[in-house]
Amino acid sequence: MFAPVYLDWNATAPLDATVREAMLPWLGTRFGNASSRHEYGRQARAAVDEARARVAAAVGAHASEVVFTSGGSEANNLFLKGAAALRKPAVVAVSAIEHPCVREPARQLRRQGWTLREIAVDGEGRIDAADWQRTLAERPALVSAMLANNETGVLQDIAALAADVRRSGGWLHSDAVQALGKVAVDFRALGVHALSLSAHKIGGPLGAGALVVDKRVELAPLIAGGGQERGLRSGTENVAAIVGFGVACELAVARLADEQSRLAALRDELQEALGALGATVFSAAAARLPNTVFFALDGIDGETLVGRLDRAGFACASGSACSSANPEPSHTLLAMGVAPERARGALRVSLGRDSSAAELRRFVETLAAQAQELRNLAALAA
Amino acid sequence: MFAPVYLDWNATAPLDATVREAMLPWLGTRFGNASSRHEYGRQARAAVDEARARVAAAVGAHASEVVFTSGGSEANNLFLKGAAALRKPAVVAVSAIEHPCVREPARQLRRQGWTLREIAVDGEGRIDAADWQRTLAERPALVSAMLANNETGVLQDIAALAADVRRSGGWLHSDAVQALGKVAVDFRALGVHALSLSAHKIGGPLGAGALVVDKRVELAPLIAGGGQERGLRSGTENVAAIVGFGVACELAVARLADEQSRLAALRDELQEALGALGATVFSAAAARLPNTVFFALDGIDGETLVGRLDRAGFACASGSACSSANPEPSHTLLAMGVAPERARGALRVSLGRDSSAAELRRFVETLAAQAQELRNLAALAA
Repeated sequence: MFAPVYLDWNATAPLDATVREAMLPWLGTRFGNASSRHEYGRQARAAVDEARARVAAAVGAHASEVVFTSGGSEANNLFLKGAAALRKPAVVAVSAIEHPCVREPARQLRRQGWTLREIAVDGEGRIDAADWQRTLAERPALVSAMLANNETGVLQDIAALAADVRRSGGWLHSDAVQALGKVAVDFRALGVHALSLSAHKIGGPLGAGALVVDKRVELAPLIAGGGQERGLRSGTENVAAIVGFGVACELAVARLADEQSRLAALRDELQEALGALGATVFSAAAARLPNTVFFALDGIDGETLVGRLDRAGFACASGSACSSANPEPSHTLLAMGVAPERARGALRVSLGRDSSAAELRRFVETLAAQAQELRNLAALAA
Repeated sequence: MFAPVYLDWNATAPLDATVREAMLPWLGTRFGNASSRHEYGRQARAAVDEARARVAAAVGAHASEVVFTSGGSEANNLFLKGAAALRKPAVVAVSAIEHPCVREPARQLRRQGWTLREIAVDGEGRIDAADWQRTLAERPALVSAMLANNETGVLQDIAALAADVRRSGGWLHSDAVQALGKVAVDFRALGVHALSLSAHKIGGPLGAGALVVDKRVELAPLIAGGGQERGLRSGTENVAAIVGFGVACELAVARLADEQSRLAALRDELQEALGALGATVFSAAAARLPNTVFFALDGIDGETLVGRLDRAGFACASGSACSSANPEPSHTLLAMGVAPERARGALRVSLGRDSSAAELRRFVETLAAQAQELRNLAALAA
């Protein structure tokens, strides 16, 4: 089978072989509804509990603070809608570069009388200090700011934001879906009230995520029913996926130091080569994830380039996968003040455990050739 | 490994071997975010589309009417909360025997100004005709009535209810989670506006379900974000689980006729044996699923008996798994007018593909012995 080089690890990662091994029994002879009061149910419950402890340990939280969900999007929606449901409408503030699964629920809250405040970012994609102070002055009840951006990879100083939000009496939630496994994530050190995680970005399965949440934060469930997950998320627990999530978290933490430096070295080499091609790397001056490069080549359309690279055997993205049905330029870049025509040129390369220097050298060669062809075509058409 | 006889198929079913085979590639070399615009993404998208067609075909719906969710609980919540979010508060009516994942979201709607009406059932667990007419007279905007009850197995005449609700201008939703694979389920013939399905009850994986929904029904998403599933359910599609769900649906339909008669024969034999032990079978006079027997033995506590049967190697339930953390007697039985002390004696045996006559004969022998021991203990204590 033809296997293109995968350079889109921020969209999803292949299932890690060790994770798969841990899941397979739960897709085979082991099964059971974790709420059932018999041997099958108890074994399922024990597996879920063990996974909960693993996920909690990976982010320095207590197991009782982990609420399993079907993924990151659900975790983000659960925090925003769940917290809003039990409070009087007030100000909800989210950064201008949040993933749609934070921005959209925040927008939905307006229907219930909430005032939505979008926090501006600077040209590098970092939360703008002045606008942050203006936001704080409005005493937002709920604030959501992502730990690492899915497109630029930019890291925010969430611990500082959390301290500010605590002083002003609000709750800070952080979407850590892209950060987990790429940088250290510590629930206590960050000081946030809630944190969203996803399994499939770190070599775990699709279908599992978590909201790690301080018990003083009162939430209404998004999915109400049988009362699973301390009443915060009903529905029969997806045992295989949760087991896989737990193991993936453990592996991610164990490998973090080595992977971080290995990926950063690959990333730096890639950036250097891209620089030699005249590319602009977005957010280059900001603290970023070690695996992500978001860049543009002058006068070249990102979508077109992604299509050509795909046919040439390289899978990368023009932005986040979640919005790829949407031909609009990246909202992250627009929020950073990048001109729409420049933002349309954006291409994201995100690396992972299987990425190698040899692959990236072939990628750069192909990219250079494709870009040259596109420029030649443009010159002919002009 | 000690493997108790599994008699709790309504709680969850083991993953079917054919389903597992279809899923494994998506837990191995095949992966990708179905929204990604490259080879990996396109293959994931094609797999999701194929599964969507299979699920639709199994219930006589169009593929475009299938909204994948993480399971039945999410599908039920999506209908009730999603429909309510876009309408002015009015009357929402749900039967008194609905699963908590219908009753709880219906209760949550009261906070938003909705009036909740619970529809009474008769002594057999069928919707009470007179109370149904009284409910209709209140012109409910949203009605939810389950196709088959998870505890008694009682089937409702959903097609008749749907015709009534259509005439009065409301929307009827039916939770078909327990019906799928056990009786024929046809979206068009039922005439409902929406139908909830779940994969893991029919030998599919945990983590997949669907809301089959008429396109004239406007819904707000429960999980908002990237806009997957026509904007009705955001979040990266769980490809492996969705693929498994599709195959499980196809198998369930192919096997339905044979399994129905085989299970009904086993069930009848079991009921006869239970009758000889003096057991009362609940809803015995109603049309029911072929696999479910909900019964009680005079003067014996259901929880205690489930525990003893578990230690003796038989996995059954005192009621639905979702409420097994809850020591209250079955709300289904209470709604049927069964006295609480009698309802506390309830035991549910639900059969499935692996169930055999030999297993059930051993079960009845063990049950008789355990019941006798409990009666002897009670006599000693008296």
